[in-house]
Amino acid sequence: MQRYFLEQPLALEQAVELTGETAHHMLKVMRMQVGTQVELVSVDEQAFVAAIMVADVTNKMVQLTVQTALTTTVELPVATTIVCGLSKGDKTDWIVQKGTQLGAHRFIFCNSQFSIAKWDAKKQTKKLQRLQKIAQEAAEQAHRTHVPTIEWRASLTSIATEAATVKLVAYEESAKAGETAQLVKNLQTLTAGQSLLCVFGPEGGLAPAEVAQLQAANFQLVGLGPRILRAETAPLYLLSALSYVTELATL
Amino acid sequence: MQRYFLEQPLALEQAVELTGETAHHMLKVMRMQVGTQVELVSVDEQAFVAAIMVADVTNKMVQLTVQTALTTTVELPVATTIVCGLSKGDKTDWIVQKGTQLGAHRFIFCNSQFSIAKWDAKKQTKKLQRLQKIAQEAAEQAHRTHVPTIEWRASLTSIATEAATVKLVAYEESAKAGETAQLVKNLQTLTAGQSLLCVFGPEGGLAPAEVAQLQAANFQLVGLGPRILRAETAPLYLLSALSYVTELATL
Repeated sequence: MQRYFLEQPLALEQAVELTGETAHHMLKVMRMQVGTQVELVSVDEQAFVAAIMVADVTNKMVQLTVQTALTTTVELPVATTIVCGLSKGDKTDWIVQKGTQLGAHRFIFCNSQFSIAKWDAKKQTKKLQRLQKIAQEAAEQAHRTHVPTIEWRASLTSIATEAATVKLVAYEESAKAGETAQLVKNLQTLTAGQSLLCVFGPEGGLAPAEVAQLQAANFQLVGLGPRILRAETAPLYLLSALSYVTELATL
Repeated sequence: MQRYFLEQPLALEQAVELTGETAHHMLKVMRMQVGTQVELVSVDEQAFVAAIMVADVTNKMVQLTVQTALTTTVELPVATTIVCGLSKGDKTDWIVQKGTQLGAHRFIFCNSQFSIAKWDAKKQTKKLQRLQKIAQEAAEQAHRTHVPTIEWRASLTSIATEAATVKLVAYEESAKAGETAQLVKNLQTLTAGQSLLCVFGPEGGLAPAEVAQLQAANFQLVGLGPRILRAETAPLYLLSALSYVTELATL
């Protein structure tokens, strides 16, 4: 069933009138008609099934009635922030798309010392809008109730002051040195409602000075197994492992 | 350090002469010179460090001496076959690229009932060559010793007779029904040297008849968490979880 995120609260039996982009998508792209059911997510992240009562193609307006609440939990029990040094090309796009499918709560992209791609203050507004749209579409498709937020920082320095229950750095040099214990040790301490933040380098990796700065701010260095993962694959490993530990093997 | 897969056995102190594509890459693409060290992987999947002794640009010929053996294990302890119903566009490319980084041993692509893209016997030769090349490049970059093999089947039916210690189907309907125990239960039975085979549907999912046929052949249905993963993301979840369980949390 198609899912839409709305910027309003929703309650059972409520009548909802939609115009603009969402109505256009329902009427023109999906060719929905009276009686079609959709999933609506309220501004406070509650999901409902609603049925179309009026489908007004001329005025691009849809009226729906909220029918039932969807109560299955689809969000990771640990709110996870993925911090990435900027990578080239469309890698940011798909870190957001796949990371959203895998449950990330928030993404922060930042210029880092070895980033080949850099964003300036001007460029970042457009880039963030684009990534936010990708996140929303991926959240709809993955049937999530939370759309991850996308942020940008001019440097990794500001990340050191971010708050989270567990703060990690996925560090290639740790993996190369055969470090295998830290990820398990850290993920196993997490309980539902806590938060995790993990920093990933760009293609060129993190600079030793950046790693030292994060370590000084209580970030733990973790290896993600013996194979060298690319910048766009490593966040997916972390999110998959976290889902396995907290959603399947249970906290 | 750059890694190359060779089709010959290698031993310590052996002199190796390379021509053709590998020599071209060393001399023209990487502009390597006498003294440069590279990693070579033998036909029997042993990795070594070798140094360039002669760099003959005119005759596109490189001579190296094998110096030391690399003994760190980088392959997943459980040989894992990823079976995918054919998906559209470049999705097969990146299932192979990312799946190779994450340690897959073998990929099998097959036409399935709900596949939009289908390959015929003619098309598949070229497609497989292309995917094999992507697998080799990804294996070099991930510093693996095994290049995954890529195969194609005209239908899912033949998969039922494949041999593996544990045979799974990642089934969206299981995930939707809240199934969370089977993946953990199955991965935890695996020990080093055993094998795993997991079937993933194309974009449209697997047909109920296909699932029933695999179940009759002792495949277990597993859910990969509460979010709906796309065809190209689900294999990466499985491989990441398997690495976490068998390489970090240890068997």
